[in-house]
Amino acid sequence: MALYLTEDQVNNLLTMEIALESLDKVFRARSEGEVGNIPRARLPIGRGSYNLMAASWPKAGIVGHKSYAAGAGGASFHVMLYGTNGEGLLAVIEANRMGQVRTGAASGIATRYMAREEASSVGIIGSGYQAETQLEAVAAVRDIKSAKVFSRTAERRNSFADRMSERLSIDVQPADSAEAAVQGVDVIVTVTNAVDPVLTGEMLDHGVHINAAGGNSWMRRELDTHAVAMSDIVATDDIDQTRIECGELMRAAETGHFSWERLIRLDRIVRGLRQGRTQPGDVTLFESQGVAFEDLAVCNTLLHMARKQGVGTELPG
Amino acid sequence: MALYLTEDQVNNLLTMEIALESLDKVFRARSEGEVGNIPRARLPIGRGSYNLMAASWPKAGIVGHKSYAAGAGGASFHVMLYGTNGEGLLAVIEANRMGQVRTGAASGIATRYMAREEASSVGIIGSGYQAETQLEAVAAVRDIKSAKVFSRTAERRNSFADRMSERLSIDVQPADSAEAAVQGVDVIVTVTNAVDPVLTGEMLDHGVHINAAGGNSWMRRELDTHAVAMSDIVATDDIDQTRIECGELMRAAETGHFSWERLIRLDRIVRGLRQGRTQPGDVTLFESQGVAFEDLAVCNTLLHMARKQGVGTELPG
Repeated sequence: MALYLTEDQVNNLLTMEIALESLDKVFRARSEGEVGNIPRARLPIGRGSYNLMAASWPKAGIVGHKSYAAGAGGASFHVMLYGTNGEGLLAVIEANRMGQVRTGAASGIATRYMAREEASSVGIIGSGYQAETQLEAVAAVRDIKSAKVFSRTAERRNSFADRMSERLSIDVQPADSAEAAVQGVDVIVTVTNAVDPVLTGEMLDHGVHINAAGGNSWMRRELDTHAVAMSDIVATDDIDQTRIECGELMRAAETGHFSWERLIRLDRIVRGLRQGRTQPGDVTLFESQGVAFEDLAVCNTLLHMARKQGVGTELPG
Repeated sequence: MALYLTEDQVNNLLTMEIALESLDKVFRARSEGEVGNIPRARLPIGRGSYNLMAASWPKAGIVGHKSYAAGAGGASFHVMLYGTNGEGLLAVIEANRMGQVRTGAASGIATRYMAREEASSVGIIGSGYQAETQLEAVAAVRDIKSAKVFSRTAERRNSFADRMSERLSIDVQPADSAEAAVQGVDVIVTVTNAVDPVLTGEMLDHGVHINAAGGNSWMRRELDTHAVAMSDIVATDDIDQTRIECGELMRAAETGHFSWERLIRLDRIVRGLRQGRTQPGDVTLFESQGVAFEDLAVCNTLLHMARKQGVGTELPG
């Protein structure tokens, strides 16, 4: 019998620690060649798009996909898991909250393996739905003491700072510009839907780690070409998807400021096959694409937890 | 609220007539540019494969996908439908029976627009799960009086002949070779998983219409190159998918016996933009790929019927 998990049930089961552990495992498995992945495909619909991405992890016994219809009225996300040994459908999981946590966790994994060990401060540009889990994830892998947040609306950045100060028990302050938010910090997170760059090379100090986690589209850029060119190590969760969706790297490559040969798969860094940082002064950049095998890994963990705890609704059939 | 439909519920709702009507509509819509389609993508799993294909039809208010894990233990198919105007998930539909009927119906539509009007006999090679709906669909669009069936196991072709004679009230006879099954018939159906051709050019008479509906893989061929070369009109439900999955056309093209420029989209024939047959003596060939927009169209109809009749289970969430 297949299990249906609602957003509320997922929210009760899922913690950042669980997501980080699931992603660490699946990145290692991927570096062993155990994981298959199909990059996001899109179909335009009315005022939005329909998105579909899939992955397989036969050694863990699972294969599946995430689909979502995103439009003016918000988005509706679902993950379906199938067994790889003839079990058929295992689960349908509402995946809005799940996606928010796994996207944070992907930046957490990158930060774990790429940022300086002693990193203690974060500057975050963007204060939307995805920003909370970004900060939470970074704080889960480094001993973060303080953070600064900038977004265009003062009210929203103030509210984010208050909320996250309390939730993470660290000092989170609003900043009144992107420059101010990232000045002097050890880790930068960009998590915007910016069309034009919000983070420029001029704003970067040596030794900083950057998680670029904003909207995926070749039409958008969060970093300018100078910032890309300044990055000593550039990693991503999926190279195929990066080459068709990562506007800032595509632009930098097209203009001769970046070579795709330099792009490293994060799973190789997690596995220790490549270095995430060669020296303290390196600028390191993680380009987060949000990939199906990440969804699969977190949902597989959720399914096991739900089964164990008796949570969820059995589907008919 | 989204609706879940089981195989039994689908089986009770769906008839060949309904599937034919749904496909006729969606082919017309596609020829108007109203339909988007993403060809089947596959991931290998254990002893089988995981398959994912998607389509959109915003004018009908729907977008969605079909996924299935196929392996030694059978296959498990599901279609998910989303609204294109922010409605979120509309339905999860078990799609094994649905796929069987829609694949038959696609051949039915091709036969309706490509076979001679007076066609009255069918030769079918293959007697498996998909063969029944192939014959049913052809019999639904032409005044079929008789059919012959060949498959390798005598017991299975005898049982198919008995079963379908009764179900369709026509004379269905087993044949003891592929040659005998197709000799002198007006419509040929191949619906096998053959690796090597079961239908050769030598077996073809002028004026015949062929539905090639068997397994989709570039490694398989149901027709030999001579049979492809003899076909005056060659149509398919999706050109993109044909170019990566249709072994017999790929082989014929590679060896210079077929030009992709000759391949016609069935929707253009349905719409009357292209001729499905120019003269009675033409050999016409429909290469059925099985495409997501066909699933979407039939499932959309099923969903409307289920809502109207109060069938199905509301999903939580």
